Amino acid sequence: MTRAVAYKRERVREYLLELVETRPPGTSIPSERTLCALLSVSRPTLRAAVDELVHNGLLVREHGRGMFVAQAKITQELVGADTVLSAPRADGQWRSRVLELVRVPAGARIGRKLGVSPAAEVLCVTRLRLVDGVAIALEWLHIPAEVAADLSTVDFEGAGLYAALRARGVLVQEATQSIEPTVTDEAESALLGVPVLSPALLFERCTTDAAGRVVEYARSIYRGDRYRIVSRLSLA
Amino acid sequence: MTRAVAYKRERVREYLLELVETRPPGTSIPSERTLCALLSVSRPTLRAAVDELVHNGLLVREHGRGMFVAQAKITQELVGADTVLSAPRADGQWRSRVLELVRVPAGARIGRKLGVSPAAEVLCVTRLRLVDGVAIALEWLHIPAEVAADLSTVDFEGAGLYAALRARGVLVQEATQSIEPTVTDEAESALLGVPVLSPALLFERCTTDAAGRVVEYARSIYRGDRYRIVSRLSLA
Repeated sequence: MTRAVAYKRERVREYLLELVETRPPGTSIPSERTLCALLSVSRPTLRAAVDELVHNGLLVREHGRGMFVAQAKITQELVGADTVLSAPRADGQWRSRVLELVRVPAGARIGRKLGVSPAAEVLCVTRLRLVDGVAIALEWLHIPAEVAADLSTVDFEGAGLYAALRARGVLVQEATQSIEPTVTDEAESALLGVPVLSPALLFERCTTDAAGRVVEYARSIYRGDRYRIVSRLSLA
Repeated sequence: MTRAVAYKRERVREYLLELVETRPPGTSIPSERTLCALLSVSRPTLRAAVDELVHNGLLVREHGRGMFVAQAKITQELVGADTVLSAPRADGQWRSRVLELVRVPAGARIGRKLGVSPAAEVLCVTRLRLVDGVAIALEWLHIPAEVAADLSTVDFEGAGLYAALRARGVLVQEATQSIEPTVTDEAESALLGVPVLSPALLFERCTTDAAGRVVEYARSIYRGDRYRIVSRLSLA
């Protein structure tokens, strides 16, 4: 790509971002033809910039109707080690739907993550997380049966898994969480209702109790077009 | 995708992840043919799982030589609002290389982000961030000229921009940072040395000084195959 093309696309992106960030969701955006004339760029240059914003969930294209400012992303604040995580600080009404709940041997890898024997029984739960009724994330939870053998669907769809664990005398204390970018595969895309290879965040979390025992290993995929993390950093 | 296929791929992924996570970087992995026989799966099923791990930077395929465990990702700890960010807690030796440094009018969007007039002069810096000599991130920094007009390349390649600002009496205090997944475009891919549409993390950061004035607006793209964030969460 020549430098001039890169610069043109950057200028078009800035223009579109300004439109998107200063107008309410659902606002109609001028047609591609109008934007090309306004910015003096070719159709392919404009379309590349629009495609990027559509892909990242900032613009919505509706066939025959035009382009619109997308809904704001669900913004969740990431809280650090020194702040007590009392409630998840995130927009919207969060719910969970269990897709599968099975008891199986841990296997080598999950056993290692949980610090149990590969033969130890583990509760494996696949759940969909929804915000205001829209699927936002897929989560795979692994809990050693010896931690809480009697957990059932209601505990994974209710007020909170950690509350359910506390009710059984398991005091969750700390989690170490990693965040990486990924793209959705076929199965994930179908469940989340997004195109295959959509940008997504991959979370991995190990949760320990007051005694330092691993009580949960979780892996989650969050849709990038509808979800982002915000954190405040102190630099003083 | 049928449920049986999804289950097979999950099993293959678990097996490969266990190999990757328990062996040092550079270790050779059995051939696709051997793995198919070992796991009793078809070549397409195996290849889909391998492709995913290659895409996410966990496995490396070398034509004619085979597959190897990839280098460990550079892990950076995300520090919360209550912890003073004294040094970036990340692996490796970080360096920066300035690709462009220009003074231009802010324009509508950057002006809004920085809280200055669209006509106000802004320092725009494009820099590559390298860890142990390898390009890991691309960063676009915007600093109002009225904050520090005399910053030059050395300030963006040296010991730290915030130190350079402090030396000019600008006391950076807090940053609000958002994190979203994205994929690299053509220009970004060329500069970072990754295939087009590789998973990446998009950071946006607004930094304020002790008086609450915005002194920096930054946008960065971090390679997902070589970088991840870790945070510790308190749940007690």
